[in-house]
Amino acid sequence: MRPSGREPNQMRAVTIERGVAMKAEGSCLVSFGNTKVLVTASVETSLPGWLRGKGQGWVTAEYGMLPRATGTRTRREATAGKQSGRTQEIQRLIGRSLRAVVDLEKLGENQVTVDCDVLEADGGTRTASITGAYIALAEAIRWMDERKLTRGPALRDSVAAVSCGVYRGTPLLDLDYLEDVEAETDANFVMTGSGKFVEIQGTAEGAPFSREELDQLMLLAEKGIGELSLIQKAALEA
Amino acid sequence: MRPSGREPNQMRAVTIERGVAMKAEGSCLVSFGNTKVLVTASVETSLPGWLRGKGQGWVTAEYGMLPRATGTRTRREATAGKQSGRTQEIQRLIGRSLRAVVDLEKLGENQVTVDCDVLEADGGTRTASITGAYIALAEAIRWMDERKLTRGPALRDSVAAVSCGVYRGTPLLDLDYLEDVEAETDANFVMTGSGKFVEIQGTAEGAPFSREELDQLMLLAEKGIGELSLIQKAALEA
Amino acid sequence: MRPSGREPNQMRAVTIERGVAMKAEGSCLVSFGNTKVLVTASVETSLPGWLRGKGQGWVTAEYGMLPRATGTRTRREATAGKQSGRTQEIQRLIGRSLRAVVDLEKLGENQVTVDCDVLEADGGTRTASITGAYIALAEAIRWMDERKLTRGPALRDSVAAVSCGVYRGTPLLDLDYLEDVEAETDANFVMTGSGKFVEIQGTAEGAPFSREELDQLMLLAEKGIGELSLIQKAALEA
Amino acid sequence: MRPSGREPNQMRAVTIERGVAMKAEGSCLVSFGNTKVLVTASVETSLPGWLRGKGQGWVTAEYGMLPRATGTRTRREATAGKQSGRTQEIQRLIGRSLRAVVDLEKLGENQVTVDCDVLEADGGTRTASITGAYIALAEAIRWMDERKLTRGPALRDSVAAVSCGVYRGTPLLDLDYLEDVEAETDANFVMTGSGKFVEIQGTAEGAPFSREELDQLMLLAEKGIGELSLIQKAALEA
Amino acid sequence: MRPSGREPNQMRAVTIERGVAMKAEGSCLVSFGNTKVLVTASVETSLPGWLRGKGQGWVTAEYGMLPRATGTRTRREATAGKQSGRTQEIQRLIGRSLRAVVDLEKLGENQVTVDCDVLEADGGTRTASITGAYIALAEAIRWMDERKLTRGPALRDSVAAVSCGVYRGTPLLDLDYLEDVEAETDANFVMTGSGKFVEIQGTAEGAPFSREELDQLMLLAEKGIGELSLIQKAALEA
Amino acid sequence: MRPSGREPNQMRAVTIERGVAMKAEGSCLVSFGNTKVLVTASVETSLPGWLRGKGQGWVTAEYGMLPRATGTRTRREATAGKQSGRTQEIQRLIGRSLRAVVDLEKLGENQVTVDCDVLEADGGTRTASITGAYIALAEAIRWMDERKLTRGPALRDSVAAVSCGVYRGTPLLDLDYLEDVEAETDANFVMTGSGKFVEIQGTAEGAPFSREELDQLMLLAEKGIGELSLIQKAALEA
Repeated sequence: MRPSGREPNQMRAVTIERGVAMKAEGSCLVSFGNTKVLVTASVETSLPGWLRGKGQGWVTAEYGMLPRATGTRTRREATAGKQSGRTQEIQRLIGRSLRAVVDLEKLGENQVTVDCDVLEADGGTRTASITGAYIALAEAIRWMDERKLTRGPALRDSVAAVSCGVYRGTPLLDLDYLEDVEAETDANFVMTGSGKFVEIQGTAEGAPFSREELDQLMLLAEKGIGELSLIQKAALEA
Repeated sequence: MRPSGREPNQMRAVTIERGVAMKAEGSCLVSFGNTKVLVTASVETSLPGWLRGKGQGWVTAEYGMLPRATGTRTRREATAGKQSGRTQEIQRLIGRSLRAVVDLEKLGENQVTVDCDVLEADGGTRTASITGAYIALAEAIRWMDERKLTRGPALRDSVAAVSCGVYRGTPLLDLDYLEDVEAETDANFVMTGSGKFVEIQGTAEGAPFSREELDQLMLLAEKGIGELSLIQKAALEA
Repeated sequence: MRPSGREPNQMRAVTIERGVAMKAEGSCLVSFGNTKVLVTASVETSLPGWLRGKGQGWVTAEYGMLPRATGTRTRREATAGKQSGRTQEIQRLIGRSLRAVVDLEKLGENQVTVDCDVLEADGGTRTASITGAYIALAEAIRWMDERKLTRGPALRDSVAAVSCGVYRGTPLLDLDYLEDVEAETDANFVMTGSGKFVEIQGTAEGAPFSREELDQLMLLAEKGIGELSLIQKAALEA
Repeated sequence: MRPSGREPNQMRAVTIERGVAMKAEGSCLVSFGNTKVLVTASVETSLPGWLRGKGQGWVTAEYGMLPRATGTRTRREATAGKQSGRTQEIQRLIGRSLRAVVDLEKLGENQVTVDCDVLEADGGTRTASITGAYIALAEAIRWMDERKLTRGPALRDSVAAVSCGVYRGTPLLDLDYLEDVEAETDANFVMTGSGKFVEIQGTAEGAPFSREELDQLMLLAEKGIGELSLIQKAALEA
Repeated sequence: MRPSGREPNQMRAVTIERGVAMKAEGSCLVSFGNTKVLVTASVETSLPGWLRGKGQGWVTAEYGMLPRATGTRTRREATAGKQSGRTQEIQRLIGRSLRAVVDLEKLGENQVTVDCDVLEADGGTRTASITGAYIALAEAIRWMDERKLTRGPALRDSVAAVSCGVYRGTPLLDLDYLEDVEAETDANFVMTGSGKFVEIQGTAEGAPFSREELDQLMLLAEKGIGELSLIQKAALEA
Repeated sequence: MRPSGREPNQMRAVTIERGVAMKAEGSCLVSFGNTKVLVTASVETSLPGWLRGKGQGWVTAEYGMLPRATGTRTRREATAGKQSGRTQEIQRLIGRSLRAVVDLEKLGENQVTVDCDVLEADGGTRTASITGAYIALAEAIRWMDERKLTRGPALRDSVAAVSCGVYRGTPLLDLDYLEDVEAETDANFVMTGSGKFVEIQGTAEGAPFSREELDQLMLLAEKGIGELSLIQKAALEA
């Protein structure tokens, strides 16, 4: 029934390859099927002016897409002279998601900037980005731990994300591009490894949705995030 | 318990004054307590290039805030040279919310632009904007109906929005600024008059939240939107 | 003869409602007939770098227009990414007009920013803005006086503005939009309560004008400003 | 009494050298004392979209200043990424002044763009620009006449400009930089060769000014413009 | 002697992996040692306005660098709001280099846009980009050939690039980052497979260089480009 | 054979007029035939933040072109809102060329900004700019010497530039616009008075070029720069 032949509650193949960027304090290449995102985490031992002297650090994120990550070439944002509204929305979401599991005081007066650059886009780029961003951030925090830059364990939990949607009347887990384009309802869930919600964004693309539909999507998300959390754990232990 | 003395499930006083802008095809001044938004709907009988010849119309929205709508002056976006990420996020949300209840084919090849300009901000500016935007849009569609610009009833339902949040451990309806700043969890709900969801955005500002907390917020939202829908109905019948 | 039926030397109905913005240190809603401008004055107890340490304060102004203040929707400047030349010209004029009646040394090392946002435009938005800006500034200076932020009476005089023009051969006071569009000559006068000139801007829109025509426009302006000064005085005493 | 030793009603030495730009349809180098402006007029036989098909042409102007035209280096506007408010104000003024003496219908469906670039600035750059812009425009219109691009005599009159001001209590003609900085009142007058006004801009830099002071400035301006008109006439006949 | 232990006339290990971007008409991942560039070629069957109707196509290039391709994070150009002068210089060079070996008439009225995005930067990003850009372009032209979009063989030759420099007095081939930073002279050579020059850019970073030094660098470049051309040939035959 | 009738190895008439800008610490008007560039050098006794405290000064350059320096009017970069890639390339080249002959430590902690503004463009604007920039810089350094701002002789050598190219099969010195447009190969050479290279930029505009052609262009360049160096020397001694 799904264009890809997957079961409704089946994730795409997810892989996380760590340490791919030679120079970054943390990095990974995360794939959700054909969606591929290169994530780096950069540590700076200084803070932007508005945060200095508050006894805490900061985690922020930026998101980009290579022009030909998409089926037809998308205009480069550096050429256009600004980031699109969509890009800003996504990078704000990634930043909030990461900060939800970080103890900013334990981070010390340091800043971690996580860059998520989409190499190939096949749906779910923001959920793959969040899932990979956690890994790059965890690597960077280990790097900081080794250099005594942190003030104790700065990560309170893990965080991952998945999209779900209603496609031709059926609730599906982890939409790919073909499903996403046609879905009546599209929801992104960001959850912690311990199963709590960090962010929910549900949007009726076609007809408004009912409470029951939302409940079904949540069940799928909980299953998907459970699997992602295990993959994350394995990646960090590798 | 609430700074304002309201009950947990009590909305602020909501008023909608129609026809406030002399020149606009639709307009209202919507107040959620001390939050005041001036909304206008502008009809253009032409479409942007990418939409022409598809046999349908379009509804879009823009959002702005007067510099001194806030406690300390906020920099004017026209001076800064761009809209902030927050502004873009909100105006995209307003646009999606309105389109969810409009039959774009019945709108004919016309475009309605809804402008939401916040005169006073005391929390909930995006939910007040959506609630008022529906009224301005409905007025504009009546204006179009009278001039035979539409191709049948273009509005499928009404739409309204409210924010809920967990404040000092208690789920509250319709957060004002003081509550919003301190809330652990903050969620915005956009729903139709018939009780279905158009958009849900829930964010853990402090600790991640559980499914139970989300369920409680949804119940509050359903109550609040029910009241807003009645106020909208009364405003349009006045 | 005038589209509005007014006498050539008759102002539109002018009203000034003070204290309309809850959060601003000074504010008013000023109407010249159907032209309506919301004005706020914001006090900051710091100065921009280039003014610090000179033993004086500063007064500056910004001007904006809601997109649907006009007969057809005007593009939002925040979306366009910059303020138009017209906007900059007007806000520079408002700032100069206010500074002409302020003793900047008595203001202390504080800055007052006056925002004039046009809610409805029917001609004369810059003259209504200046007239209202004086009221908002006066309110803000009272607020500063009460907090001992000033160093003596900072206002030397009042200031108001009116436009005059030659319309179908006849000199008229206080042009509305229909008159303005068609006027051969258009002049803006900014004057103090004591009857001196702060700024004169006269422009031949059609044929160049003679000294005699300019003299007639000045007489009208003196009459109009006299009336505006009384309305300002009453507003501040209310 | 004047820093330069001039009489109060004495212009600086004014020279206009025509045909200085090899490639432009019209050009001149105009000097008001040490203020030097290079002016070119460029003819295009097409119009911007919003003017096409109206049976008339257009005249527009742009203004710039070389970075080291001033005593200390001014930041290049191309580097800053935008024209300042002052620049926009001046170029709008030049454009209006030129259009006041042009019969746009006789111009045919052509556009003339006049560029005024200040090589050296010593006060009065906008008045020198207008005075020179008329010469470059007249040259360009002759060029058009020879090619039958015009539809009859497109220039109705000549136009020139001069600044006057009250300096240490005395009304002066044609302020240079040292006088301008200190002047209590500063006024720019744009007038036709036949002695009518195209634009008046008077500003109280210090104390507001009286009707009498303005009258004195006007008399000086009439004298100065009279002299400029003769110099313009001679330049065009040379 | 070289930080890397290479011989003066020894290239780094160069690899070219074709077909890495699923959606692009041509693509490769090119590595010059630790410098890695992802290149895509996108075919559009339309042209920008200024090129239409001239009976030829166009090839253009854009260049970008992921923020953490470098040792410390570089600001994202999309956030900065513009491409740096360095970026523009490089992408103009890549475009010129490609067009030097393309017969634009044979390309038909189509445009190929080549995007070079640096994943890791260790010196020589522009030369690696050009070398890889040729491969992606060749793949895209094959794709066009198969669809009869070309009008005969559009590639006249191959093109590759390498940098050479004088480092501590010794001429070296293919500088890496450590060498580049310290080099007294730095030169980039773009050459065809048949051994002719497309572009030479030599810069004295420290002391000016002599004709003899330049001759030595050219000899190194000829050797390096010869090797690159073989690697390119092999990659296209694979 | 050349459109201008010059011999292949003949420069255009080159003149350098010093001290043309009243306010600048150094300046000249340089002409290569009909190409005319006004150059100023501005001394600031402070440095940009990133250079402070390093015990050295800085030399930088900016380049601009008046809109009607060209055969048809070019859009003003200040209006376009940014400098073109070409402009940035040129001003970076001018800056590097000047720094190659300056001992930055001897310059003291001062910055010299050289502005090259093209009044008339007939080919070779960048080479004329560099040649004139050296003169303006030398004047400014003399001015600094007189005020004891330098720490010894800051100029190590002179620097000049010339373009050469292959035009209809013949190598030519100092291309003018007509030759430049048609040249198959175009090369810019920047050399010191002592005959060493500072920068070489050779580009195949049509067919790639051979080592022999490059050698011929270099010989021409050496001749041309030799002549320019004498003219520079004479100008500074005048």
